[in-house]
Amino acid sequence: MTLPPEFALIARHFRPLAGAGALDLSDDAALLDPPLDRQLVLAADAMVAGVHFLTDDPPDTIGRKLLRVNLSDLAAMGARPLGYLMTCAFPRGTGEEWIAAFARGLAEDQREHRLSVLGGDTVSTTGPATFSLTILGTVAPGAALQRRGARPGDEVWVSGTIGDGALGLLTLTGKLPPDDYLARRYRLPEPRLALGAGLAGVARAVMDVSDGLAQDLGHLARAAGCAAVIDADSVPLSAPVRRALHGNPALRVGVLTGRDDSELLIAADPADAPRLRAAAEAAGTPVTRIGRFIQGEGVTVLDGSGAVIALPQAGWSHF
Amino acid sequence: MTLPPEFALIARHFRPLAGAGALDLSDDAALLDPPLDRQLVLAADAMVAGVHFLTDDPPDTIGRKLLRVNLSDLAAMGARPLGYLMTCAFPRGTGEEWIAAFARGLAEDQREHRLSVLGGDTVSTTGPATFSLTILGTVAPGAALQRRGARPGDEVWVSGTIGDGALGLLTLTGKLPPDDYLARRYRLPEPRLALGAGLAGVARAVMDVSDGLAQDLGHLARAAGCAAVIDADSVPLSAPVRRALHGNPALRVGVLTGRDDSELLIAADPADAPRLRAAAEAAGTPVTRIGRFIQGEGVTVLDGSGAVIALPQAGWSHF
Repeated sequence: MTLPPEFALIARHFRPLAGAGALDLSDDAALLDPPLDRQLVLAADAMVAGVHFLTDDPPDTIGRKLLRVNLSDLAAMGARPLGYLMTCAFPRGTGEEWIAAFARGLAEDQREHRLSVLGGDTVSTTGPATFSLTILGTVAPGAALQRRGARPGDEVWVSGTIGDGALGLLTLTGKLPPDDYLARRYRLPEPRLALGAGLAGVARAVMDVSDGLAQDLGHLARAAGCAAVIDADSVPLSAPVRRALHGNPALRVGVLTGRDDSELLIAADPADAPRLRAAAEAAGTPVTRIGRFIQGEGVTVLDGSGAVIALPQAGWSHF
Repeated sequence: MTLPPEFALIARHFRPLAGAGALDLSDDAALLDPPLDRQLVLAADAMVAGVHFLTDDPPDTIGRKLLRVNLSDLAAMGARPLGYLMTCAFPRGTGEEWIAAFARGLAEDQREHRLSVLGGDTVSTTGPATFSLTILGTVAPGAALQRRGARPGDEVWVSGTIGDGALGLLTLTGKLPPDDYLARRYRLPEPRLALGAGLAGVARAVMDVSDGLAQDLGHLARAAGCAAVIDADSVPLSAPVRRALHGNPALRVGVLTGRDDSELLIAADPADAPRLRAAAEAAGTPVTRIGRFIQGEGVTVLDGSGAVIALPQAGWSHF
């Protein structure tokens, strides 16, 4: 008895990604023994073609980006990846080669981050390709990093470099000259899992930067009932972003408010700076101090002369 | 500091649905203490406007249908609901009243089934509204109902009535006269959670019927390495479906292969029939014996005279 096309697709391309508990993706649900003495950490993100990725992005990078933005949420909680469920809405007529490449990308990142697929759903859509992924991770009880917890006087730190993804999108859409490094950072963000895992007991608050540094810092400040001030000149930038800003200083606002960073934003007591640097070194992920939390509300961005940089919009909103 | 529109929408309509562990939907992820001595059961389903529901369906029924098709997967595993994560891709310009009604529907079903939202994502799309929901449930270790396990000689049972959803869609699209009962069954399937919970140790195999009775029975038979024969005349039908078939016998194939049943398909040893009937009575959900498993492969549907009914397609496939 031949399987109908939908189930044959799943069997060929997604079943090889399935791990223990997934029941070969052929049951109604997955069955999981929760790890002993661990809390579960759960997050879900969706991506739509033309909104979160480009329709002509290589399909293997699309699956990986979807997984990585979710892994970045685990990193921001200090959690370790366990598994994921994914739903895919493919436009009718999507070629099987496209789906095969999409699944190959997922397989690559699964190996790197040691997790597997537990379940999901594959459907058709009359609109753009749309994906949703729910990730599961684990953390020692009480060790999860949360957004609340910053206090006036704490310092603001950020991992890696800011603005690569936002400028990568501009290079891929012809608004900036082509740049392989920036294109890759747009398509394949780097979840900071090792850093996140090292921040328990070191950071007061952590979150993932995904909707613009200024806006996300506003979330961290609001959760703590305080304000934040950062120095734009201290925000860490990659060499390609520095070059682009040199030619076009107006891009600075885009760097501070653009999407697709997937870096960690960290609040820490100044006395913990040495421990924070040690954790970053152990993880192999650079961290940079960019400002501090103060009494009040809102986010202020200062330039090198101490003047306020006006941000027409602090970050991305879908509506 | 005012929240950007996307976060304000989430705060107004989805935060009230959040339960313990959701961290007010304002952190990177949810934190959950897994229930002691239970296995986790996890499933995910997606729904696309125009594919899984009608664009003009009342928005409160759309959220509820999404939750209910996932609850039906838990029912098929004998699991108890715990919580869910949901991603919503709304077309830009979706009115806030629409979103409010969507959330009200979810709130109603959350109360009925005692679960709450743990996390998710709200994004915009240039295509049809697209939703994805990952549900978590719990089951006693070893008690989960699975698809494999039927044996030749076992009987095939089904809960409730078959074909209501498929014919409901026909009434709502003008292909059959309007019928409130069938429209409701299309929009609001009834997850058979109480029945599923009562089937541990009674049924040999259970699955949720969602892609057509004939096709889904094929999955159950394939998982067991055997074949199934059912008697079309014994398939339980609601009064509105019987009336529709009386006027148009050709609809019978649509009833046997149509989507949107959300009933349970059950394999049981004939000796366990009395216990199965008792479990159904305790759950308040009727069950009907419709056939049996035999050696071989495939699904055969017989009419009242014992002749084979040809099914051009056993069920729904997206591709």
